[in-house]
Amino acid sequence: MQQRQQALRARRAGAAYRQRGAGATAAPSPGQHPFTRGDENARLFAYESRTKEAFDRIEPTLREIATYQYQSDFPAQAQRIARQELGFELPGHLLDHTWPAPPDMRALYAWCVFETFKRFADTFYLEKPLAEPQDGEFQNFLESCGFHIMDVSPCADGRLAHIVRYVLRLPYRAVRRRSYAGAMFDVEDSLQKWMEVELARHREGVPNQAGEPTRYLKAAVYHYSRSDPDREGCAAHGSDADIAALRALSRLQDFRQAVENSFCCGASIDLLLIGIDTDSDAIRIHLPDAHGGIDLERYVDAREAYEATRHVAARDAAQALQRMVSEHAQALEAEPSEGMVRLIARLLMNNISQVDYVRTYFNGRYGDVGHFERFIGMGIGFEEVQLRNLTYFAYLTTVEQGAKDVDVGLKIFTGLNIARGLPAPVIIRYDYHGNVPGARDRAIARCECLGQALKDRFPQESAKGLLHTLLVVRNISEQSSIEVVGGSLEAPGGREDHQ
Amino acid sequence: MQQRQQALRARRAGAAYRQRGAGATAAPSPGQHPFTRGDENARLFAYESRTKEAFDRIEPTLREIATYQYQSDFPAQAQRIARQELGFELPGHLLDHTWPAPPDMRALYAWCVFETFKRFADTFYLEKPLAEPQDGEFQNFLESCGFHIMDVSPCADGRLAHIVRYVLRLPYRAVRRRSYAGAMFDVEDSLQKWMEVELARHREGVPNQAGEPTRYLKAAVYHYSRSDPDREGCAAHGSDADIAALRALSRLQDFRQAVENSFCCGASIDLLLIGIDTDSDAIRIHLPDAHGGIDLERYVDAREAYEATRHVAARDAAQALQRMVSEHAQALEAEPSEGMVRLIARLLMNNISQVDYVRTYFNGRYGDVGHFERFIGMGIGFEEVQLRNLTYFAYLTTVEQGAKDVDVGLKIFTGLNIARGLPAPVIIRYDYHGNVPGARDRAIARCECLGQALKDRFPQESAKGLLHTLLVVRNISEQSSIEVVGGSLEAPGGREDHQ
Repeated sequence: MQQRQQALRARRAGAAYRQRGAGATAAPSPGQHPFTRGDENARLFAYESRTKEAFDRIEPTLREIATYQYQSDFPAQAQRIARQELGFELPGHLLDHTWPAPPDMRALYAWCVFETFKRFADTFYLEKPLAEPQDGEFQNFLESCGFHIMDVSPCADGRLAHIVRYVLRLPYRAVRRRSYAGAMFDVEDSLQKWMEVELARHREGVPNQAGEPTRYLKAAVYHYSRSDPDREGCAAHGSDADIAALRALSRLQDFRQAVENSFCCGASIDLLLIGIDTDSDAIRIHLPDAHGGIDLERYVDAREAYEATRHVAARDAAQALQRMVSEHAQALEAEPSEGMVRLIARLLMNNISQVDYVRTYFNGRYGDVGHFERFIGMGIGFEEVQLRNLTYFAYLTTVEQGAKDVDVGLKIFTGLNIARGLPAPVIIRYDYHGNVPGARDRAIARCECLGQALKDRFPQESAKGLLHTLLVVRNISEQSSIEVVGGSLEAPGGREDHQ
Repeated sequence: MQQRQQALRARRAGAAYRQRGAGATAAPSPGQHPFTRGDENARLFAYESRTKEAFDRIEPTLREIATYQYQSDFPAQAQRIARQELGFELPGHLLDHTWPAPPDMRALYAWCVFETFKRFADTFYLEKPLAEPQDGEFQNFLESCGFHIMDVSPCADGRLAHIVRYVLRLPYRAVRRRSYAGAMFDVEDSLQKWMEVELARHREGVPNQAGEPTRYLKAAVYHYSRSDPDREGCAAHGSDADIAALRALSRLQDFRQAVENSFCCGASIDLLLIGIDTDSDAIRIHLPDAHGGIDLERYVDAREAYEATRHVAARDAAQALQRMVSEHAQALEAEPSEGMVRLIARLLMNNISQVDYVRTYFNGRYGDVGHFERFIGMGIGFEEVQLRNLTYFAYLTTVEQGAKDVDVGLKIFTGLNIARGLPAPVIIRYDYHGNVPGARDRAIARCECLGQALKDRFPQESAKGLLHTLLVVRNISEQSSIEVVGGSLEAPGGREDHQ
């Protein structure tokens, strides 16, 4: 709690992102683990800090602009400061006519968040700052371990949004991610995904032929806070790590059972349960036995792996970790497959880089151990969000069914923004397959429906300008960026400034 | 409009269903078409009239009961009349304490509709009054015509709810039906269905092996009213038959395009566009050419088929109709497959029985040419509803996205019931696969969510007792009946009288 207040004070004071991580520096510290990829860490940190700084400059910049609001040249002053500090101009209609009434700083704030998001998304899709040079290598590795897909459901908490690309260091396009509050993924939705994947194998041999003896791997990621377990753990499970793990496991088992019961011919899947300490990004992996049984008490912790191998030469990293996982595996009644052991060793090795990332740039513990998201995301999509604490993301198709997740998001932003008179910026998103006729129109209609439902659910916040929305769609059949299709900040006359 | 008022007056006066169809009689008239299956017609009519009579007895019975409301032995009198007229007792808590305030006749009305529905559903699933002795025969026939599945999307209008079992005389378990307002079926939902079917062929050889050169057949059914085209046509398309046909065709084409674009290896589907005159149940089928092209102007009308073959011996029925369809087919630039011609001929032959059904029992035109539904159905399911004008059905997962369909339903029931002080009875339904762990609990939660959303959307009607709900789930992995899980009429103390 104290941490969060410190972080909030920092944001209020306009402190740059870098300064929040004590001991932060652009160069990797000496003394890091031999397996750690320092270059990659530096690149990832540069991207993370650049991105978050862009969001965190908004508030101090607008505070400065606000001091000019009674001057006759307010629009000119505002644009000058915005250009200088934010790198873009503000929409004219929000600066005009400010002598009879003060400028709508809430609208300006939301507009700047949305504009910054749009620029962030464009950078992501056009410059691909997080792309791996050999995306295909992981898929080959995965198949060599006996799996044709890795489908990950983390908790929707913003502190897990970087799980794929940062925490596990996997190519984000090679792993399916679908986030749910408490990692409580939807079984029916997952069954659809399973069918989709299996049909592609049968019909198209993608990613491999259906005859290949590989399996569908479903992972769930729960989380806890090592330093403040009772308050900064998973809200969906009362901040209780044991319960979070138990429920995620039980959902995994439900999914496997659903596949086994719904399809004949020995249909099944493999399961993986992963826990993450959101303070340090260290993971622990619960080893499944040969029959897929998972014991909540038995896991390999990345911290343990880190310590056990910190004097091993980097070239022996894979073997050393495999040996370690093997020893854990041999203690199980039925030893898991060699492929499963290799995959887990790889995930641990990858995570060691992330453990050092947090050690190097954040002194081993994030400054923002609690919620510190910059905006709420709602709907379907957000592939570009691969950063920690950038977005509280509610994966949903309607507010009606996702009401719980939406309410949690608004509650978080009541603490972060609304209590301070700033709006909760909500980006409503619907990705679509451009090769399906009419899909774009339907995606837009769905965004609008979500926007209206959100407004209906929070009429007071909406009326007071304490909740603003941006409607965004994206054609996932192409590698293009997002498209802004509406929102609460449309200019008079319908011109859309975010286009 | 006049027809509807007559029908309403009949319902008000408590006229039995039979009396609404002028010239109605239990025995088939002489002079019917030689292809008509008179026995089947008699059986279907007995089921239809028996079912609807049960619903239509409710209002006059409650009117009679209401006359006893000031008598000291009101509960006993009410039960006596209910037992005698409806065949069941009323819930005690709705009859008690009626001296300080009159009995809640609205609640009693809704309760009786729900109880009648429950009995109707039990009969359907336990006694199978509409089951065909040889359900498998149609599937074999379909495959011999070159199709492995027939997936039909009619309009959600209650006057099309009998399309499968009555109008087309097909086994309801062998045809997929998914109703949408204006037959505007969801392309993404249909893609999922397509994938499901194809995966079952690949993995399980069900209904046939993926290697078999059969196709997925998607049919859309639009409707119009021959006697009152401007008012009793499809509300979703402004009662304009041409527009209804055009839009249904365009949605079919979108679906085909979506399959072709989303899947490689020559994936495609075949299309069928069917129109129905809701006055007489006569269909018209638009012939697709060899390339799947459909011309809105070119169709074979069942009435034409009826006249052209009325002197042909029944044993030559199939050939005669095939010849007739063939002649139409030859006029197309690219003649459709022989299998398509055979299938269309079969549908026309089946429809001839239905044309005579309406001629025999309703003098060729239904007494209720307009809306005359007995209740609103909302959600996923309702396989048991295979009767005309029994249910206005809104297929939806949330009120938020299905708001338009829900509003139309409430509007219809404002005319039918609310304007007369009677509630709109809404049955909220979610079918689930019992072999998927947790599916029943999720189905119940979805019903409750829908019930709440409906109440939120119509707060005044709900508060006044002019909208009542019954929450129902069904395990479609078993051939069991429905299960009542809640609703607005739960007894004090939570006892559920519909269990």
